Amino acid sequence: MEKRKVVLGIDVGGTNTVFGLVEKSGFLSYRGRIDTRGQAGAQQLFDRLFEIFNKDYQSLSGNFELCGVGIGAPNANYYKKTVENPPNLNWGFVKMDKMVEQFVDLPMAITNDANAAALGEMMYGAARGMKHFIQITLGTGLGSGIVVDGKLVYGFDGFAGELAHTIVFKNGRQCGCGSRGCLETYASATGIKRTAFELLALENAASELREFSFNKMTSRMIFEAALRNDPVAVEAFELTGKILGEALANSVAHLSPEAIILFGGLASAGELITRPTKKHMEKNLFHAFRNRVQILLSSLPEADAALLGGAALIWQELQ
Amino acid sequence: MEKRKVVLGIDVGGTNTVFGLVEKSGFLSYRGRIDTRGQAGAQQLFDRLFEIFNKDYQSLSGNFELCGVGIGAPNANYYKKTVENPPNLNWGFVKMDKMVEQFVDLPMAITNDANAAALGEMMYGAARGMKHFIQITLGTGLGSGIVVDGKLVYGFDGFAGELAHTIVFKNGRQCGCGSRGCLETYASATGIKRTAFELLALENAASELREFSFNKMTSRMIFEAALRNDPVAVEAFELTGKILGEALANSVAHLSPEAIILFGGLASAGELITRPTKKHMEKNLFHAFRNRVQILLSSLPEADAALLGGAALIWQELQ
Repeated sequence: MEKRKVVLGIDVGGTNTVFGLVEKSGFLSYRGRIDTRGQAGAQQLFDRLFEIFNKDYQSLSGNFELCGVGIGAPNANYYKKTVENPPNLNWGFVKMDKMVEQFVDLPMAITNDANAAALGEMMYGAARGMKHFIQITLGTGLGSGIVVDGKLVYGFDGFAGELAHTIVFKNGRQCGCGSRGCLETYASATGIKRTAFELLALENAASELREFSFNKMTSRMIFEAALRNDPVAVEAFELTGKILGEALANSVAHLSPEAIILFGGLASAGELITRPTKKHMEKNLFHAFRNRVQILLSSLPEADAALLGGAALIWQELQ
Repeated sequence: MEKRKVVLGIDVGGTNTVFGLVEKSGFLSYRGRIDTRGQAGAQQLFDRLFEIFNKDYQSLSGNFELCGVGIGAPNANYYKKTVENPPNLNWGFVKMDKMVEQFVDLPMAITNDANAAALGEMMYGAARGMKHFIQITLGTGLGSGIVVDGKLVYGFDGFAGELAHTIVFKNGRQCGCGSRGCLETYASATGIKRTAFELLALENAASELREFSFNKMTSRMIFEAALRNDPVAVEAFELTGKILGEALANSVAHLSPEAIILFGGLASAGELITRPTKKHMEKNLFHAFRNRVQILLSSLPEADAALLGGAALIWQELQ
């Protein structure tokens, strides 16, 4: 019987690491998941991951031919194949090609998780067939991947696509990066919570959100309150979309993409976030770009997107 | 004798159109110039241009082999090979490939003047050998060309690289495009004049610039006043660089270029514009990008840059 060609996709997350065997078509034929245990370091994670994977693969290997390893990880550098001081992991500086070659002698590629999600979207999701798009991941923070001519933009040093830290308000909200007014302090799960708190301070409207402390409130609660027409929650989505839309208008002026794909926790609010984003983006677009750029929701299952993206990355390299 | 391969580069400007024969090395072996006469239309311009060129080429053609035609023109679309409603020319919509094939049966390519300048810079100027850079033309308005992986970014529809119309101040200065607060209303020859007028209104400092009407003042006067340490003129350059630098920090976050090349009338002010631009860009950069991105002045002669760029475009296509 002919063996099916697969790659091993790995998505290193702050809490969990998922991995799986992915065919070129995007078909996921095997999936595993382990705790990342960020404090224990990269070597420990990959020891555990490959112990499980190798055991499972033994029972499958009659049917599959493993062709490569593709990884999405925070603060990964595509050119250098490194992970450098990821924010939630006690990893320091890791040479990921050396890490992987301890376990398998196969081509490997790595990029950051937001870039991996963009590649996954291009090969298997809402951006299939597109050559120019921007993927925005609205999670705890904001991630972004830029695709030009069908290829991820890495830039001179591998760090392109950091839309999170474009400054949208001079002297605005304090950002973890040390600056103020970065886009991700407004357009992210944390950002919408900060916006809700501003509105609770600014307005007198009754709101169910007045019951929650800053530490207790989540973007999910704001979403559910908005579905019940809570005025503060509805306004928080409107403002978040406004700021995101204005920022995206500037991104469009740089890149003239066919679409912007929204992905991640906050994107699951659907129309609540896409409608104001689209409206305010259009308002701020140079006329050459008006009514041309779609705002779409990701069509990948959130749990698998970066895993599929890691797989897409190595499939692209193998071509 | 072996013939030298050349292309015909054409730079359509609002006032003059320059053209010339360019070898692949960038060597310019022949140069012509005619009035554009923008009100008379495109056909009339190309009739006149090729009448002169054909006559001159007759006397040269024993030595040269013409391989293609490359054009830089306002509002040109690379994909469609069109010029569409250029602001200062009464051209309407012109199919430039049809226009050129009336005169020569050779490969042709066209892009907007700012993109052409970026290509010229990459093949023959300050960006030689670079694969990731942004070219900013600070003329009457602001033009920009973005190079990623050694190729111009055209985007989905050919209009990428419109940094002029990124909005840097909400409800800021009125722009010719119909919006407010566009970058080019601050960072351009016209922009610095508007800034000087704001400063003349805001401050009491004595300044030689108080002698000039809005219609009489030029960016050249501001430059010369700044060389004499006129406080308003010096501050106008500082503020222009600040706004440009802040905007470029956001561009860097998108693209992570190796350098930003400044070109055009205002760029001839040298350090007066590069120093504040660099300072304020650095202040606003995400840490991954700090002290990595050069601000350079164009090394092409201003009169020939877009002509060399048009030539570079068709040389690139011929490869």
